[in-house]
Parts: sequence; C-alpha cells; structure tokens
Amino acid sequence: MKIALAQLNYHIGNFESNTNKIIDCIQKAKLQNIDLVVFSELAVCGYPPRDFLNFDNFILKCIDSINIIASECNDIAAIIGSPYFNPELKGKRLYNSAFFLNNSKITDIRHKTLLPNYDVFDEYRYFEPNRNFKTIEYQGKRIAITICEDLWNISDDPLYIANPMDELIKQKPDFIINIAASPFNYKQAEVRKSILTANVKRYKIPLFYINHIGAQTELLFDGGSMAINKEGDIVEELKYFEEDFKIFELEKLYIHSYKSQGIRHKSEIGMIHDALVMGIKNYFFKLGFKSAVIGLSGGIDSAVTCALAVKALGKENVKGVLLPSKFSSEHSIKDAEILANNLGIPYEIISIEEAYNTFEKTLKSSFTGKSFDITEENIQARVRAVILMALSNKFGYILLNTSNKSEAAVGYGTLYGDMCGGISVLGDVYKTQVYELANFINSKEEIIPQNSITKPPSAELRPNQKDNDSLPEYEILDKILFQYIEMSLGPDEIIEMGFDEPTVYKVLKMVNASEWKRYQTPPILRVSPKAFGMGRRMPIAAKYLI
Amino acid sequence: MKIALAQLNYHIGNFESNTNKIIDCIQKAKLQNIDLVVFSELAVCGYPPRDFLNFDNFILKCIDSINIIASECNDIAAIIGSPYFNPELKGKRLYNSAFFLNNSKITDIRHKTLLPNYDVFDEYRYFEPNRNFKTIEYQGKRIAITICEDLWNISDDPLYIANPMDELIKQKPDFIINIAASPFNYKQAEVRKSILTANVKRYKIPLFYINHIGAQTELLFDGGSMAINKEGDIVEELKYFEEDFKIFELEKLYIHSYKSQGIRHKSEIGMIHDALVMGIKNYFFKLGFKSAVIGLSGGIDSAVTCALAVKALGKENVKGVLLPSKFSSEHSIKDAEILANNLGIPYEIISIEEAYNTFEKTLKSSFTGKSFDITEENIQARVRAVILMALSNKFGYILLNTSNKSEAAVGYGTLYGDMCGGISVLGDVYKTQVYELANFINSKEEIIPQNSITKPPSAELRPNQKDNDSLPEYEILDKILFQYIEMSLGPDEIIEMGFDEPTVYKVLKMVNASEWKRYQTPPILRVSPKAFGMGRRMPIAAKYLI
Repeated sequence: MKIALAQLNYHIGNFESNTNKIIDCIQKAKLQNIDLVVFSELAVCGYPPRDFLNFDNFILKCIDSINIIASECNDIAAIIGSPYFNPELKGKRLYNSAFFLNNSKITDIRHKTLLPNYDVFDEYRYFEPNRNFKTIEYQGKRIAITICEDLWNISDDPLYIANPMDELIKQKPDFIINIAASPFNYKQAEVRKSILTANVKRYKIPLFYINHIGAQTELLFDGGSMAINKEGDIVEELKYFEEDFKIFELEKLYIHSYKSQGIRHKSEIGMIHDALVMGIKNYFFKLGFKSAVIGLSGGIDSAVTCALAVKALGKENVKGVLLPSKFSSEHSIKDAEILANNLGIPYEIISIEEAYNTFEKTLKSSFTGKSFDITEENIQARVRAVILMALSNKFGYILLNTSNKSEAAVGYGTLYGDMCGGISVLGDVYKTQVYELANFINSKEEIIPQNSITKPPSAELRPNQKDNDSLPEYEILDKILFQYIEMSLGPDEIIEMGFDEPTVYKVLKMVNASEWKRYQTPPILRVSPKAFGMGRRMPIAAKYLI
Repeated sequence: MKIALAQLNYHIGNFESNTNKIIDCIQKAKLQNIDLVVFSELAVCGYPPRDFLNFDNFILKCIDSINIIASECNDIAAIIGSPYFNPELKGKRLYNSAFFLNNSKITDIRHKTLLPNYDVFDEYRYFEPNRNFKTIEYQGKRIAITICEDLWNISDDPLYIANPMDELIKQKPDFIINIAASPFNYKQAEVRKSILTANVKRYKIPLFYINHIGAQTELLFDGGSMAINKEGDIVEELKYFEEDFKIFELEKLYIHSYKSQGIRHKSEIGMIHDALVMGIKNYFFKLGFKSAVIGLSGGIDSAVTCALAVKALGKENVKGVLLPSKFSSEHSIKDAEILANNLGIPYEIISIEEAYNTFEKTLKSSFTGKSFDITEENIQARVRAVILMALSNKFGYILLNTSNKSEAAVGYGTLYGDMCGGISVLGDVYKTQVYELANFINSKEEIIPQNSITKPPSAELRPNQKDNDSLPEYEILDKILFQYIEMSLGPDEIIEMGFDEPTVYKVLKMVNASEWKRYQTPPILRVSPKAFGMGRRMPIAAKYLI
C-alpha cells in the first residue's frame, strides 16, 4: 500500500483555498498511484478555528468541503480532519473528527478522544470526547486512526483517564495514523518524536504522523510529519516550516533496517529563527498585507526584528523609521542607519523632538509644579507610536512590535508606545535569546551592527538611562523569569535554587503587576513552551505576590 | 438547624483579606448560634483564579487558608470552596472542591463534577471532574453538596453526560447546597432562578444557593444567593451587587407557605447600571487606585461612562478632560461642560490643535502627495490618548475607555486612540442600550445633557462627519450584531429574519475584520451573555465571511 502524507499550510476559515489545496494534493497523489493520502487535524477549516466553531454556518461549510473533497476520492482514499456535529442530544455539539473518504464518498468517521485544554489549547470548549473505538479496514489492512493528543497520554502520571490506543490495539490494527495540529516550540520537535516513538514501541506497529505547517497568528506550526517503522525508528521526516508531500510504502515499514540514517536538526536558536520568519510571513499573507514598518532605535531588539522581517517579506517590503529625540545618543542613529544599509531597506529619519515639545507645552499648565518623571518618558514612546501608526495607516504597512519577552514580562515598556504593533515578533524571546538570535543572524556576515549587540541596553528616554537601572541584569532576570513563567515555580522554589530573595520577589511582583499592560499588547509569535497570550491566562485585578 | 449564607466579595489571590473576611463571618455566625455557614465556590482564592492555579505555591496558600478557617470552626460547621490537589496520579492535578469544616478541622471534601468550559469559563483547563458521589451527614441531616454547574445539566439536550444530583438523590439527602460562582449578565438572574427551582421541583428537597458578589476585572458577580423551599418557591434572595449575610431555619423550608411574597427585580437596564458601577468601583479598589480620568467629547458614550464613574468613585475622584480640535462643534464643548457641571466634577480643556498641527508638520515630507484620509482622523484620536495617558501617568488616574459595543464590534474606533483605557465600561453595551442607560441615569434629574442624547452621533474627526456615513443606523446595526454575536447566527439565518443582504454581509465582515483591533483593547465589563474578551475567542489572521 502506498501512503502519502500531505503537510500543508491552511488558512483558517478560507474554505475555498484550503479545499483547492487539498484537492490539488489528491490529484497529484492519484497520478502517482497512491492508495491513501493523509491530511492533518481540522485541515478543512484550519487550526485553531476557535469560536468560529460556535457557528453552525461554519461547521456546515466544513462539511461541504469534506463532501467536495470526497467527490475527488475515486481510485484513492483520503483521511482528513474536520469538525462534525455530534448526533446525540447529550454532550457537546461537536466532535473533532477524522473522515475516511473512499469511492467518492465518506465511508467512515472517527472522533478524537483526548481533547487538550491546557496552554494554548481549548478543545474541550467545543468538542465531545469520543467513547467508541473502532479501527478502519482498507485494502485488507486495519488502520487505527488517532487524532493528535490521542497518542500523548502515555506518561506515568497521565493527564487523562482514557487511552484510545489501549482500546484500538485490541482490534489488532496493522498500523496507526495520527492526524495532528501540534504547534512549534523550541523543545517540541524532540518531545514529539519521543512521544511518537514511545507509542510505536508500546504497540509494535508502524505509525504515520501528519502535522500542519504555517502560522495561525501567534501559533506556529512547524510540520515535521513522519513515518515510524515497526521497531520505533523514524523512517523519514517531512520538512520543517515548509509544505511537503512524501510517499511511503507501507510494507517497508515492517522491515527492520528501513530507517533514517540519523536526523540532524537545527539548533534551538536556528529553529526559533525559522519559526519567527514563517510567523511574520504568514501573518502578512493571511491578512492580505505586503509590507511592514519598524521603528529602528539602534538597539538590538528592533535590529533583530527588522532582519527577521526582511527575511520574511523581502527588503523592498520593510520600511525602517528612525525616531530620534534629544535623549538619543549619536551611536543609536548611526547603528540604525548601518543596519538599514546592511539590510538594504528604505528608511527615513523623523525627529520626535517637535511633537514632544508641543505636548510639553500643551500639558504645561496641567503639570504645574510637577517634575520630569516616567510620564515624559512615556510621552516620547507614544509620540513615536503616533508617527509609526500614521505611516502604517497612510501607506498600508503593518507595524511590527519589537518588545522582547523579558520586557513584556516585567512591564518594561510603554503601553500605546513601544508596545504597539500588529504582531509581536520577539515577545516570546528573552533578551538573552535575542542576543543569540543576533549572533545567529550575523553568523555569515555582519547584518546587525556589532555595536547594537555589545552596547548596554537602554530605552534612551532620559539622560544616561540604562535598562539595569530599573531591572536586574538580563542574565539573572531571564533565569528567574524562566523558572516563574515556563516552570510555574513559586518564590520559595526559585530562591532555593540560589537566587537572591529580594530580587526574586521584586521580579515576580513586576510580572504579576504588569498583567493589565500585557492584556492590551499584540499577539506574540509563540516559540517557547509558555508564551504570553492565549497560553497564559491571568487575572488582572488580583493581588498575588504583589 | 440554622444555616447562614455568606455572600462576599473576594479579591483574587489576596489570601489574607479573603481569609479575614471569611473568619469575621464565622465569628458573627457563632454569636447568632448558627449551625452551618456556607461560603461560595473557590472562595478562599477568589474566582476566577485562572492560571494562578498552575502554581503549587498558589494551591498551598489556598489550603493554608482552609486550615486557618477550619481552626475557627468549633461549635459551628462551614462549607467553603477551594482548589485541592487530586491525590490520584491519573487525571488533572486539581479538583474544584467544597470543604466541610467542623470540630476545628476538615471533616469532608467533595469535588465538582460538571466543569464549565464555554464562554468565559475555563474550568476543564485546571480541574479533574468528580466521579464519586456521597452526601455528607451533619446533625442528623444528609446534605447533597454540589458546586455551581453541577445543577445546570437539566435541559432536554444536556451539555454533559453525567448528572451529579441524579446520583446524590439515591442517598436520600434532606437538602441541597450549591456553592457557586455565577457571573452576571442581564438575563442571568432569571435563568439562574429557573434552573435552581427546576432542580428543587425535580428532586423535591430544599436548596441553599450561595453566589459571589463583586467584580473580578471584567467578570461581574451579582450575588442573588437564595434559599428555595421544598416546593420550589424562593423563600428569600440575598442582595444583588452587595455583600450580604442571611440566616435561614432549615425546618421552615419544608413548610409549604414559607415563601417570598413575590420578588421584584430592577429592569434589565437598571441591573446593567448597577453592574457597571460595581465593575468600575471594584476594578479601582482591587488594583489600589482611587481616581479616574475620562475624555469628554460631548457625546453620549463619554457622558454615560462619566456618570457611572462618578457613581462608583465619587465626584471628587473623576477628572473630565475636554480635548477639542478644529472639527469639534461648539455644542460638543458646551455639552461636555454641562455634563461636568451637572456631575460636579473637576474638568479641564486641553486643545489638541497644536499637537495635531505639529504631527502634520513632522509627517509632511513623508506624506507628500497624499491627501487627508483616515490617517489624520486617527492622529487626532491618538493625540487625545497621549494627553489622557500623560495625565494618567502624572497623577495616578486610571483612564476609562468609553467605546460602546457597537463600535467595538465593527472596529469603528482608533486603536491606541479612543480605544485606550484601563477598563472598558461600555464595551458590552450596544449603542442603542447606551441611550437607554442615559435615560435611566436621567430618570430623576437631567445629568446627561439632553443634547448629548438627541444629536446625531459623530466622531468629529473630519468636517460634518456622522457615524451613519460609515455605519448602518444603530437601530439596524445593533440588531444584526446581536444575532451574530449573542446568537451565533450565520449570514443566511440573519438575512432570513428580514435584514438587508448587503448590509448583513457588510456588518459581519466588519466584525470579523476587526479581531486584530479588539485583541488589543482593554478588558470589557461583561453585562451580556456574550461579551468581547475572554468569552469570545476568535482567530485573527483568518478569512471567514471576509
């Protein structure tokens, strides 16, 4: 049996484009005498469709798509994910389903059992879990169809009480298919492979795994679909961060020696780089925009953001804007100009001086007797935002946000100022990782000026300001933040690891006291196991560790 | 048996204050020889604690609180909600539990079975559902303890397969206690009462229901706790939008005639008014702020917001700012001044003219050859935001957002401009409801100038601009929005109701195309069954009905 995995980039709600893409693959597969072509979870509508699932109209459009696709499935079978109405009165109204299409019709439907509902996942919000387990027969083979999380419940302290493969294996399936929507983070490729191979080792039958690629706003899907032979060895992986289509001969997957000769991966920082580039590219494409505007401060964050944007959109589609004030150092302007020249992008210099002075004047009588404080710093950042957004509005650019995760965590930024933008590129990248990214980008030639990398970070909103006037050194800060945000450790546990007690309390308090600010920031491209945004939901008017 | 219901306003994560409040009630109950005092769901930590639940440290603090409270429970029993660790390895790590405290210790723990995971609720994100059903014996009576949603599964097409009371009733309990966290919307009080009385009619035993009051950022809890006699008649309701403490004699609840002589409710608009006032008040108090700043345009939205703020915070704590431009009409300034004078609040007038002109000058060379468009409109709105935020920063005011739900729905507003603010007061109130609110506020005396109510709505960002240049009349727009947002109807279903086809498509497209904008707006006080924010989760880079 020849099985093809079709790893595609879907556009949420764009039924026409998704269906056409899927049908193109089916046509291609037919020409190559494929027996079965497999698409990923909720492929017809894109993942995650979120509350569009609450609209009957949306579900009906999904089912229409499935029927159109089914009509193409003559002389070939296909497996494809779609939401489906639960026919029972009891329980939630939908299933997250895998459709088996053959003889130009829907021949079987299987539903997802384990519905992830943590981090960025909300599947129990919409779907009823499956409770009936049945393999599917095709060309004399029995297939165990599972959907993503269905294979992830194999640890010693399992999150779910049920385990679908434990049921399906009783029916002696010949192989497993897992259709998935498993988003990227810099640990995920390794974790995913270890989970999938562990399944094969447990059930002792080959596995085909098919994932999404492409960005859905903040969620980045890296692909990495694969086939695993009966012994638990990976035979071949599909591409990362690209659409791909690969054909496998089922029979070979029972042969011991049929396996990959060692798969080499990019470094974590290399994967983050590729993920962010894809994130920018897809955000623009899926919203129908072409070009970006970025405020270039001469600092490392805007430099890295700009370099990634150029990679994603092309140098002709990235506009740099330098917005100096009286507090901007000479080298800041120079560094930003060198960057723009290295990247070959158009840029202009627009001084914020006059606008800032006008606000000072406008507010003079209101501020009588008050001295320069954070207010004036924020005004500068907000004047920059007004200018950048004006350029965005006038020319149809999307403004890229340049805040990093360390700043976003402790609230070191101006809401409606430097925290503006359509999408945050580095909001899930700690400052220390931004340096790594800069060096990665510079690995072949100097794109980001060395001075942007080596000079002490500064917001340059008052004379001689340095980030570490208000914050611990990033080397320390990022480590504390990681333990709190990614590891969910409390203050005592972090202090026990050897960090300074007052610093730990100060940092945790800053994080919790900035929830109101983060609530209003752009979506953040997610590259870590715990990003700000949908995956981390915090109360605002609360008082915990504050 | 004397049973007291303690309806309190908790502060999320503020264990000290919550515990003290609870203990004060227990002391008070002891003085009145109460046998059992009942607190609401997740009372010790406040509801919803969201991802704080992922921190062991947070759960341990909850359990510490329970133990401190238990030590006060001599000569009295208490029932109180708290998260609790699931002792099993299988399943999620927490339960949403009710603790029975007696003889100065924890004597029993029961867990929630039905975990709401729709709209604003995310309980399945954290909690394992209960599967063991056991009543509790106390003073010779059997109590069926249920937690909020546990009683809500009694329709003909139930959302959940399990029904905890169907299990508990087999043990012949004498009465039901339901500890809840049931947020307000303008339909909820009626729905809640019909669900609770339906339970009593089905199980034929009295019911005590205890809810939260108070605002948790956007979620508003209205209280309305109650006791229901064996026949399904409400005996008494506790206050709405206020803390309350009421004592009931259990034995009387078996007497037919012991019931309330008809409960009169405020109108929907009256409840919305009270909910919003509480929402503002609690947001400020729980964040430790005292005073608000509001941009007064002379229009109805800012006028209503301001009147609500004065009710919540006191006139001395609300600062009005008039920010006229060359497009502001004479009457706008006059209407805003009359409002400020009617309310007795301090106000100042700060012209945006100079700042706007400076931006025009600053951007002149960048904009060469381009004519006045939405860019310049947005600059005006953003200049206002810079000024309001400067006042907020300098004086410690929270800026109140004044956008209404109709505008928020169709994206009729400037991001980082009039869409700024710490909290959105009217973001869940359609424009047509804002008029109702204005008339409600004016019912005794004219507070909101009649002219603000009667003049055609305008953003006044270009000459002679009117809202209905870009939008359908609000009477039509709001009806279409209601069908789409609250009722989740698709375009065909709305058109079938008699609305104009191109208008329906235009409106739905505007809603879906504004997700990116709404993503970055402040939390919205929730008064409807479907508010923007946590309860409505939409993809951004999608293409559905666009």
